[in-house]
Amino acid sequence: MANINKVVLAYSGGLDTSIILKWLQDQYQCEVVTFTADIGQGEELEPARAKAQALGVKEIYIEDLREEFVGEYVFPLFRANTVYEGEYLLGTSIARPLIAKRLVEIANRTGADAIAHGATGKGNDQVRFELGAYALKPDIKVIAPWREWDLTSREKLLAYAEQHNIPIERKRGNQSPYSMDANLLHISYEGGPLEDPWQEPEEEMWRWSVSPERAPDKHLILELEFAQGDIVAIDGTPMKPARVLSYLNKVAGANGIGRLDLVENRYVGMKSRGCYETPGGTVMLKAHRAIESLTLDREVAHLKDELMPRYASLVYNGYWWSPERKLLQELIDSSQSHVNGKVRLKLYKGNVIVTGRYSATNSLFDANIATFEEDEGAYNQKDAEGFIKLNALRLRIAAQLQSR
Amino acid sequence: MANINKVVLAYSGGLDTSIILKWLQDQYQCEVVTFTADIGQGEELEPARAKAQALGVKEIYIEDLREEFVGEYVFPLFRANTVYEGEYLLGTSIARPLIAKRLVEIANRTGADAIAHGATGKGNDQVRFELGAYALKPDIKVIAPWREWDLTSREKLLAYAEQHNIPIERKRGNQSPYSMDANLLHISYEGGPLEDPWQEPEEEMWRWSVSPERAPDKHLILELEFAQGDIVAIDGTPMKPARVLSYLNKVAGANGIGRLDLVENRYVGMKSRGCYETPGGTVMLKAHRAIESLTLDREVAHLKDELMPRYASLVYNGYWWSPERKLLQELIDSSQSHVNGKVRLKLYKGNVIVTGRYSATNSLFDANIATFEEDEGAYNQKDAEGFIKLNALRLRIAAQLQSR
Amino acid sequence: MANINKVVLAYSGGLDTSIILKWLQDQYQCEVVTFTADIGQGEELEPARAKAQALGVKEIYIEDLREEFVGEYVFPLFRANTVYEGEYLLGTSIARPLIAKRLVEIANRTGADAIAHGATGKGNDQVRFELGAYALKPDIKVIAPWREWDLTSREKLLAYAEQHNIPIERKRGNQSPYSMDANLLHISYEGGPLEDPWQEPEEEMWRWSVSPERAPDKHLILELEFAQGDIVAIDGTPMKPARVLSYLNKVAGANGIGRLDLVENRYVGMKSRGCYETPGGTVMLKAHRAIESLTLDREVAHLKDELMPRYASLVYNGYWWSPERKLLQELIDSSQSHVNGKVRLKLYKGNVIVTGRYSATNSLFDANIATFEEDEGAYNQKDAEGFIKLNALRLRIAAQLQSR
Amino acid sequence: MANINKVVLAYSGGLDTSIILKWLQDQYQCEVVTFTADIGQGEELEPARAKAQALGVKEIYIEDLREEFVGEYVFPLFRANTVYEGEYLLGTSIARPLIAKRLVEIANRTGADAIAHGATGKGNDQVRFELGAYALKPDIKVIAPWREWDLTSREKLLAYAEQHNIPIERKRGNQSPYSMDANLLHISYEGGPLEDPWQEPEEEMWRWSVSPERAPDKHLILELEFAQGDIVAIDGTPMKPARVLSYLNKVAGANGIGRLDLVENRYVGMKSRGCYETPGGTVMLKAHRAIESLTLDREVAHLKDELMPRYASLVYNGYWWSPERKLLQELIDSSQSHVNGKVRLKLYKGNVIVTGRYSATNSLFDANIATFEEDEGAYNQKDAEGFIKLNALRLRIAAQLQSR
Repeated sequence: MANINKVVLAYSGGLDTSIILKWLQDQYQCEVVTFTADIGQGEELEPARAKAQALGVKEIYIEDLREEFVGEYVFPLFRANTVYEGEYLLGTSIARPLIAKRLVEIANRTGADAIAHGATGKGNDQVRFELGAYALKPDIKVIAPWREWDLTSREKLLAYAEQHNIPIERKRGNQSPYSMDANLLHISYEGGPLEDPWQEPEEEMWRWSVSPERAPDKHLILELEFAQGDIVAIDGTPMKPARVLSYLNKVAGANGIGRLDLVENRYVGMKSRGCYETPGGTVMLKAHRAIESLTLDREVAHLKDELMPRYASLVYNGYWWSPERKLLQELIDSSQSHVNGKVRLKLYKGNVIVTGRYSATNSLFDANIATFEEDEGAYNQKDAEGFIKLNALRLRIAAQLQSR
Repeated sequence: MANINKVVLAYSGGLDTSIILKWLQDQYQCEVVTFTADIGQGEELEPARAKAQALGVKEIYIEDLREEFVGEYVFPLFRANTVYEGEYLLGTSIARPLIAKRLVEIANRTGADAIAHGATGKGNDQVRFELGAYALKPDIKVIAPWREWDLTSREKLLAYAEQHNIPIERKRGNQSPYSMDANLLHISYEGGPLEDPWQEPEEEMWRWSVSPERAPDKHLILELEFAQGDIVAIDGTPMKPARVLSYLNKVAGANGIGRLDLVENRYVGMKSRGCYETPGGTVMLKAHRAIESLTLDREVAHLKDELMPRYASLVYNGYWWSPERKLLQELIDSSQSHVNGKVRLKLYKGNVIVTGRYSATNSLFDANIATFEEDEGAYNQKDAEGFIKLNALRLRIAAQLQSR
Repeated sequence: MANINKVVLAYSGGLDTSIILKWLQDQYQCEVVTFTADIGQGEELEPARAKAQALGVKEIYIEDLREEFVGEYVFPLFRANTVYEGEYLLGTSIARPLIAKRLVEIANRTGADAIAHGATGKGNDQVRFELGAYALKPDIKVIAPWREWDLTSREKLLAYAEQHNIPIERKRGNQSPYSMDANLLHISYEGGPLEDPWQEPEEEMWRWSVSPERAPDKHLILELEFAQGDIVAIDGTPMKPARVLSYLNKVAGANGIGRLDLVENRYVGMKSRGCYETPGGTVMLKAHRAIESLTLDREVAHLKDELMPRYASLVYNGYWWSPERKLLQELIDSSQSHVNGKVRLKLYKGNVIVTGRYSATNSLFDANIATFEEDEGAYNQKDAEGFIKLNALRLRIAAQLQSR
Repeated sequence: MANINKVVLAYSGGLDTSIILKWLQDQYQCEVVTFTADIGQGEELEPARAKAQALGVKEIYIEDLREEFVGEYVFPLFRANTVYEGEYLLGTSIARPLIAKRLVEIANRTGADAIAHGATGKGNDQVRFELGAYALKPDIKVIAPWREWDLTSREKLLAYAEQHNIPIERKRGNQSPYSMDANLLHISYEGGPLEDPWQEPEEEMWRWSVSPERAPDKHLILELEFAQGDIVAIDGTPMKPARVLSYLNKVAGANGIGRLDLVENRYVGMKSRGCYETPGGTVMLKAHRAIESLTLDREVAHLKDELMPRYASLVYNGYWWSPERKLLQELIDSSQSHVNGKVRLKLYKGNVIVTGRYSATNSLFDANIATFEEDEGAYNQKDAEGFIKLNALRLRIAAQLQSR
């Protein structure tokens, strides 16, 4: 066991990280600094302060990171139309690099030599936290209690809590059977009944959206304005990133949008089943593709599409702070300089329907050329013959050879 | 103008290709063979025979290609989860290679030295027809009247028809303002009011689906069975490919599923706006991803995802008969040997919701490993530390260098 | 035939472009502006001025573009370790975008409405010139006489020259049977005896290098210093880009380095056989890979390697001025910020042998970690077990399934 | 420590694996089966039998795997023109999967529950052995003594050997300071003086080749015949794979060909410096590219080039037995059906010079089309205009927008 003087703990205020807090103090005989961030998970942070104080913590960091989270992490992610394995919008993945960065920064400020987190040894989050931390502070020590301790069942955890006077809240009569994670981009569910991929999740599981069935019978029209690939106004009202996302979460969730139920491949090697609610993100992805369809060059769009799966894997696997992710991000961000304009959407019972896209300054759609009517020379149809002939040349040479 | 003896015309029986038929006879003083195929466009073919006979055609080929179309073209396409530019399911693109192949085969059988088609010089279809033809019969001549003649407006066309006694059907009071194309996979709309990308299409345009608003208030549950990546049974009833697709079109269209409105990049260089209804295909794509999520190795799935955009472009651009498309297809097809099992779906007002996936023989989901509960040694959480440490090593070395 | 007022001609001063000059004046009854550039082809430019004047040209542009050529085109190309089809260093391709840009700029300055070039309709150069011109000045007209005129044989050309009093130099008793192109990066040979790919080129063909057989029996040691991926000094002497390349051409050519004989695939669809001498470029590529091997992160290096073939095709096909090439260049250039240090090379009879690489500031080679000796904890060998175990997990799960 | 009954050891007969043999018997109190293979490393195997017997081993496997190694591993690798990080021919990497497979097969036959190898915890070989073993026999146990034991210095090893009566050969007066590995494809050197990347290796290090300086003054001409991408005859003499490679090693090594000195990125995260001699492989790569240049379709060749770095990484990282490597191999192998013909090469003092390529049945080089002379209509130069115009269209539309 490493010799640790001071450790910065990613502390939610919940039971698990409270137990970790105590366990770190006991096991490592070290000082614990707590770090609690509001990234839009929808829980009050002040109780975390009280609990940390009760456990004797002297340095308590509580921060509202919502604008940084959406502006510096979520928006760049969506510039790439990022989906992991065709469907997952990376809601959990994208929050981890920010947490890792703040843990390291607080370690630097407080003189801590270690960080600790509450992610298990089976999941992706441990990787994301630790790769980030190592990339930003290579000599940092990392304590991942779930990989070390012997509190391997809920019973043992509760016993430990009781033994150490850590308060166990039992207010909610119906404790959720799911492992959940939330931030401004999404809420996720894993475990419990979901461990059978043939079993449909219960309606009660979902928290951020109504089902399409229960959504309003009338659609909602939205107009999103993009500047350099980011949404900067909704229905004419300028908004900062976090406001954009929380607004979209609200209206999309209310219209039954953004649920996802999938089996995914974890970086640590196993398949797992997860359910996600990403109402605002689902709208953003659809709208972003729509504005790009009008303003982005074809080959740039295709290049982005071909690079996207790799970029998505990098984010999913925890390589946000790697040089290769940064280089790809530069390319992606640079491609967005032309992505300006607006998109009209209809939200209705789970559907996000694009009904218009417009760009005053950057539309590459040329109605004169595209038209089926007389185009007055904008396009010379005879050019197509040569185009086809030369594209076919290699195929013809090969076919001639074979026919001989 | 080339010297042509006999030409095989892709003949729909409609006004445009009837004019082309006559024009070929006049301009090239050659014999015309007509080829009319049922690929699920939903029109009767026998009228085409009568019209061709009336225009003096002696060799008339009318064929039902629906099974070949779905089995040999649509299904292979969906094994790759193919979408062009993030959204388009390639409904038009995938029908052209089959038409090109049959045109060439009929040319070989009838001793024709040319083929002709009714695609314009602005679109992708001319490329698809001609690349296919050249790849399969390198010395074939291709006549594309729209690139040659001076009938460049609807008025001139109608005048030509009248002058040559080609019957013009005016039954439908309301002539569609759209350029349409249909086959078992989809129906497409272009032109007319759609040439303004900010304008929402009228509800009356859509033909194969009801709007989500008008879809039933009750959802439909489907169970699709996959064998080697293809759907082989629905709700327990074995079906051949064309039956699968027509069945899914029916139930998905009735539930408001499969509409798409997008701006796309044509191979010939301009952006165009198209609307598509692909009800069955939309269901197939979602279900196929679901069964793959359970049965496909992670790296195979990622490899497929990275190759997909290129494969989609090849199909979109008309390179079905190219060696590079065939090689990619071999890889894709080979990956599907494990893709066996079933998927349960809920269709509801435009939504396709996966509610379960199961594979008796090929599930790679290991509940013992994935579980959040005690796993009894199936997975050693301590392994994660080394995994992270070595993945982080290059990042740490670089960070150490920079901190010096 | 288009109505042209003034055309800027890429004019070498040689027979072919002199004939083109006259032909443009005659055919188009337009004014001709000549543009002649020194990009290191090794010919004097002043004779071109005299010839142009003799043909009545009033606006004559003669420019030394060597520094711009190497600094803005060749060096960026080599930052990507670019080779087309595994071997070709793109010597011809990389010069065309600069010529295209200058043609357009001169057209803008002189009020010309067209440009003209002497590239044939079979090659890649026409594409490179014209794509560049269209990208930079979309309404420019392009005249490519070889695609238009009827001077389709050498005899007709000579007759035309004689008829119009264009001087034909017959000084060189032995006219080269090859079509050649030269600039500071390379000299190329095509045509004539090379049209049989089984035939070895004659020793007399090569002009810039001795054969390995005739190279000195003693090797030469070079030390190249890199800053941000570019060579900035040789053997301690700082040099500007064009000086670097001409110096390397001299010493590498003298040591039998840089010959290449290959069959390549042209963008217009056919295979062609070409021979190239690229002495300096061959050295630069080898050295650049060596300094990158020490200073570039693994995943960045691999990303570059995977993108390189696409980048090479873009340059080869003439898409230098496309947005996708520019985006890739941004990524590539950005990756070079760490590529600083020096490389020691041995040149000997055709061989370029790396004998050392060193970076005071950016070496990622950590001898403490890499050592086979006792490393005192720099690397924990036990980490490897977890690393392997988790990387193997998906393979084991699949194998377990199959063994059942 | 795991409970092991019987372990199959990859046994070279050398000191290190002899110590491992004894250590396994002692530590695990288990039976040891030895497996020694001839993969062309150039050492006699029978002494390994005697030593194993002396250490009490009852089941001794000694096998000549040279034909299998070259035919089933090396040749498939070269079909892809595989180089890792631009230069390394993967000589060590490609031998490991075969060893892993045989270890597992022998474990199955002898009822062993574990395998053991002598690779360290710092290198790639441990990964290659173990990923292979886990993929082929998921429940196998792996013992990697270098990651477990405390014999962490040469002194401790020798002491252990002496203590246990393991004979230490001190015949060679000058013990090599390098860590070496050899098989029919290459011999490698690491460690010792090579740990300084600025230091040139001593001439005495190299064992398989003379230096270019000491190579003969007269070149050697070779004619290699390819069938489906593999060399099947040299200078008219049909040869089996292992014979091909050993013949090429001999003649290429004698002509100073195949030395490589590089810094590479290991899968476990650090850079290392290695020197390699791959005489035959260097010739094969050059020749294979040459025959492909004549017989492979352009887009197939480019697809292969784009996939190659990923394929190379898979082989380097030890994923030979993964499904993604197998799928890529299918694509690669399938592409080779047309790769038939012959290549003429000149070997001279380190140079491999292609002087001709020819294919009676599969050449796609069409001299009629490629010619600079009058081609009598084989190619219509006017087609190029349309080809360029449509390829330029998107660039022009974008430029027009920007100029507004």
